[in-house]
Amino acid sequence: MYLCKLFKERMEEKCTYKYLSQIDYPADLRRLKVEELPALCAELRTDILKELAENPGHLGSSLGVVELTVALHYVLNTPTDRIVWDVGHQAYGHKILTGRRDRFCTNRKLHGLRPFPFPDESEYDAFCCGHASNSVSAALGMAVAARLERQKRKVVAVIGDGALSGGLAFEGINNAASTPNDMLIILNDNKMSIDQSVGGMRKYLLQLTTNTTYNDIRYKISRRLFHWGILNEDRRKGLIRFNNSVKSILTRQQNMFEGMDIRYFGPTDGHDVVELVRILRTIKDMKGPKILHILTKKGKGYGPAEENATLWHAPGKFDFESGERIKKQSDTPQPPKFQDVFGETLLELAQQNPRIVGVTPAMPTGCSMNIMMKALPDRTFDVGIAEGHAVTFSGGMAKDGLLPFCNIYSSFMQRAYDNVIHDVAIMRLPLVLCLDRAGIVGEDGPTHHGAFDMAFLRPIPNLTICSPLDEHELRRMMYTAQLPDKGTVVIRYPRGCGSQVDWHCPLEEIPVGKGRRLKEGRDVAVLSIGPIGVEAKKAIALAEEQSGGTLSIAHYDMRFLKPIDAEILDEVGRTFSRVVTIEDGVVKGGLGSAVLEYFAEHHYKNIDVDRIGIPDQFVEHGTVSQLYKICEMDAESIARKLLQKP
Amino acid sequence: MYLCKLFKERMEEKCTYKYLSQIDYPADLRRLKVEELPALCAELRTDILKELAENPGHLGSSLGVVELTVALHYVLNTPTDRIVWDVGHQAYGHKILTGRRDRFCTNRKLHGLRPFPFPDESEYDAFCCGHASNSVSAALGMAVAARLERQKRKVVAVIGDGALSGGLAFEGINNAASTPNDMLIILNDNKMSIDQSVGGMRKYLLQLTTNTTYNDIRYKISRRLFHWGILNEDRRKGLIRFNNSVKSILTRQQNMFEGMDIRYFGPTDGHDVVELVRILRTIKDMKGPKILHILTKKGKGYGPAEENATLWHAPGKFDFESGERIKKQSDTPQPPKFQDVFGETLLELAQQNPRIVGVTPAMPTGCSMNIMMKALPDRTFDVGIAEGHAVTFSGGMAKDGLLPFCNIYSSFMQRAYDNVIHDVAIMRLPLVLCLDRAGIVGEDGPTHHGAFDMAFLRPIPNLTICSPLDEHELRRMMYTAQLPDKGTVVIRYPRGCGSQVDWHCPLEEIPVGKGRRLKEGRDVAVLSIGPIGVEAKKAIALAEEQSGGTLSIAHYDMRFLKPIDAEILDEVGRTFSRVVTIEDGVVKGGLGSAVLEYFAEHHYKNIDVDRIGIPDQFVEHGTVSQLYKICEMDAESIARKLLQKP
Repeated sequence: MYLCKLFKERMEEKCTYKYLSQIDYPADLRRLKVEELPALCAELRTDILKELAENPGHLGSSLGVVELTVALHYVLNTPTDRIVWDVGHQAYGHKILTGRRDRFCTNRKLHGLRPFPFPDESEYDAFCCGHASNSVSAALGMAVAARLERQKRKVVAVIGDGALSGGLAFEGINNAASTPNDMLIILNDNKMSIDQSVGGMRKYLLQLTTNTTYNDIRYKISRRLFHWGILNEDRRKGLIRFNNSVKSILTRQQNMFEGMDIRYFGPTDGHDVVELVRILRTIKDMKGPKILHILTKKGKGYGPAEENATLWHAPGKFDFESGERIKKQSDTPQPPKFQDVFGETLLELAQQNPRIVGVTPAMPTGCSMNIMMKALPDRTFDVGIAEGHAVTFSGGMAKDGLLPFCNIYSSFMQRAYDNVIHDVAIMRLPLVLCLDRAGIVGEDGPTHHGAFDMAFLRPIPNLTICSPLDEHELRRMMYTAQLPDKGTVVIRYPRGCGSQVDWHCPLEEIPVGKGRRLKEGRDVAVLSIGPIGVEAKKAIALAEEQSGGTLSIAHYDMRFLKPIDAEILDEVGRTFSRVVTIEDGVVKGGLGSAVLEYFAEHHYKNIDVDRIGIPDQFVEHGTVSQLYKICEMDAESIARKLLQKP
Repeated sequence: MYLCKLFKERMEEKCTYKYLSQIDYPADLRRLKVEELPALCAELRTDILKELAENPGHLGSSLGVVELTVALHYVLNTPTDRIVWDVGHQAYGHKILTGRRDRFCTNRKLHGLRPFPFPDESEYDAFCCGHASNSVSAALGMAVAARLERQKRKVVAVIGDGALSGGLAFEGINNAASTPNDMLIILNDNKMSIDQSVGGMRKYLLQLTTNTTYNDIRYKISRRLFHWGILNEDRRKGLIRFNNSVKSILTRQQNMFEGMDIRYFGPTDGHDVVELVRILRTIKDMKGPKILHILTKKGKGYGPAEENATLWHAPGKFDFESGERIKKQSDTPQPPKFQDVFGETLLELAQQNPRIVGVTPAMPTGCSMNIMMKALPDRTFDVGIAEGHAVTFSGGMAKDGLLPFCNIYSSFMQRAYDNVIHDVAIMRLPLVLCLDRAGIVGEDGPTHHGAFDMAFLRPIPNLTICSPLDEHELRRMMYTAQLPDKGTVVIRYPRGCGSQVDWHCPLEEIPVGKGRRLKEGRDVAVLSIGPIGVEAKKAIALAEEQSGGTLSIAHYDMRFLKPIDAEILDEVGRTFSRVVTIEDGVVKGGLGSAVLEYFAEHHYKNIDVDRIGIPDQFVEHGTVSQLYKICEMDAESIARKLLQKP
């Protein structure tokens, strides 16, 4: 219902747009004249800004590709032609132009538009987005499919320079070079991931950018040859080879992409929509793989966002006119974000222990490692979007005496699974893997929920895996992990805030593999791990109250998934006939399964074990508390479960 | 004991080498004169050949780097200086020169030398090897550690051009370009993975190779400048920048590596040991990251191996004099390898179903997809060592109407974990992931055992996961998987041979999620998945026999790990008080855990469940049957377990 009301209000506002209000689908867009496109772009930019001022989302990237989005849908025959967006942060303009203008105000809300493009939502969304660097591989698959099925559809991948540091993008480009296909890769070069882009490829692109003349001339010549009918597709391939040989003889060096036999165009101004249309029309039908390198500015067209791209990547609510970000005010002090406790504590530890270094794959701000980076720049490494490398690089440092804290969002750790096994655990290397954004993350939805980490890490030998109930425990676990002889330690904690306003506490060791009893009880034992234990506490109080004092529930904070606390499990196995496990992760293979395995191995029978956690499905987007309800992981649902007779 | 005997015999033989017999450690090597190195290389080559003729292993790669190995240990101060080998196939010469000459005859044998370099075995082994493309990242970590710890040690990564197609290598190089370090990357360019190298990088390297003059001249000039004392390290960096600007002005193009600010040397002949020593001495102390590109030949120095590098990658036993490979002869027909049943059946299916395509990351021979590749080259894709891309590329093809069979070794699928989740399962894309080498693989050891796949795939929603008992079942599962509306199907099967000589059978559908009862029984229910069910059968017969007829054991072949057969589990849950699960995978999180979860969810209590499978540790190398014994997964051990009172 609230969504309908939003629709209506918003639609009235939208009628004021001269061009945008005529466009429901790209077919409508294609009826405009080229000269009208700049005005449309201005309207689209305003629309995105006004929407996001009230309904927060990813702002900067979407503003940066307004012209590209318009040009692509103008020139291509979408949805028959495919646009594969990388990550999808930048696809708000795409959504607005492809039948979702009226619903855009529901973006990122429960049951509203999804946070990232997704094929189930629209036929214009060619592939799943969310994790960086997959666009080239997916688009290549589509281009090959089109070829084998003798379909004429075009396939375009749009990838940012940040995502280009991901190995998957390189694998895709490497393979695109040797597999017959007619794909177009658009390299959207804005010098940014969420933070500044880093790495050699960044430097390389910069040098390409400063060497425009040669490409410019060549491009103009080839366009003229086409125009005159001298050049056609049959002759083109031979010509490229000839060109390349001539060039390589002349220069003895190669543009990397052309060295791979991928035709390279650019760099060109990504905010000149008329020029983009012209270029896309010229190159879209060319055979063979090709790269168009465009230069854009994140936050383009909105002063505050242009000035501080990292802050305005996802700025939260703001005032459109003044450019002021609207911060939630609270009269009482609030608990800090877990990430900030991590960031502050890491610096504190690093100042005491000179062996500690920090590693982040392109998330210094997101995981608050920027605190250490500022204080100890020589010992903090932003390696770019490259999770696999982040882990193996940490392994190399640990092997030679350093003690890396490598912080990777839980769902991105899926990218580094083999690295954890092969480059860390098998050698029992002393390092600390910190998994931020573990468990349900909220509005970023199914690609970003940190659902699987406990289940996929638990089978790996030699790992210690723990999760703190609260901020103090996080600090204790971080302190403990950097003490001598602790091997490889994984610490997982969620997005958002903890539960303790005064998060400072002494740094004390906790015994590895030892949980603790938070509350005694007689009838049911609740075993929880991580901050969802706070929800469990509430549920226990609620259930005991609702039972009218007949139900007495014990609560254990397991702390460690691995090694699991045998003493607690023996106590529980001997004493209770009913056990409920609670975890913010998939129930298949997680804490609950570990408890079942232990009970089976030690022949504790006759125990009813209920496992509460993320069910065996991809969980949609919404606020964390909405999603907890859906997964029956909120205090009320847990209480209901506790009150059930088995 | 048998190892001691081997030592003795071999040592007597070895005394005949003029140089090699003086060398136990690199320190001995460094006492030789440069002019003596070619003779040493010849001896080392002979030694490797003679050893491998009798004790099979990875031949071709090791022959290809004999000169490089000698040159590296001659010039560097190992083990203080670090050599990080990529993959480690090529490290036999390294082992022989680093204190393991006498034990080399135990290579790949149980309790003998490990198949790949590993730090626990020797301080000369800098990092874990086995999975391609990790060397640059690990070495960068070590180089950074050396820098932060103010140690003067050098770090060298040796990576093949095949491994360079892996995204991890690119991530490492990309990061090496922007992180202060003095690492040397040696690019061992032999144009091969196990099969031919593919991809754009391959083409790029080829073009670099043909453009030697420029680099050659520059290298010679810089060497002379150093020699004259005009150039020193302080001036070098500025000079490189200046050079690069001048060059880029002159040529308007960049060598990719130099464009990344990584100094590039080469290409040079990797079989000229004297020249390699000279170059390494010149560049090893240069500041900043650098790449030395050397050209080598896989199988160098042994005619048959040079002629067919793929066959001689790991040729098995052979006659040193004649170059004949010695094939095991058998009087009776033998069951085929699972991989060949896969390869033949895939072609059969592809000929019937035009939507089927094949995808392999650099393993066309290893997984027998070369059968389809030969018959249907346009529909078979070797994407290079790039597992992540292989899966996402398959996802793109599936999204647009094709039906990919993507074959990846189980332990390498760890590299594509996020791709399975994010680029396939979340969209419920119809494709088939075939996991060859699932379970214990034998001599390739801990990095290669396909131990984890069931545990890490089971938590992923939307997947169907199955494993065939035998060849007929493999064919049926492959047939079923390509029928309409089957979604994403994972089929796992082991290395080596099956159990059925006549593997041809009609292609029939089997119902998804349905297992079968192989044998009735009264006292114990055995639930197995995959070909280890054959071992289970033997165990059951043995146990029933040894019990003198008092024990009656039922056997269910579960076939599907997911969805698991509820009907069977209900039957078993109602009927049996003792259940034994058997799987060739880690017990934490696999079939046994799935059974425990089901029993818990459906309140089947009072059942003793024993889980047999790979324990929670990295399993060493040895023959499969030796390792089964160690893991208590062989028929005798299983029978013992069945006879135990719970």
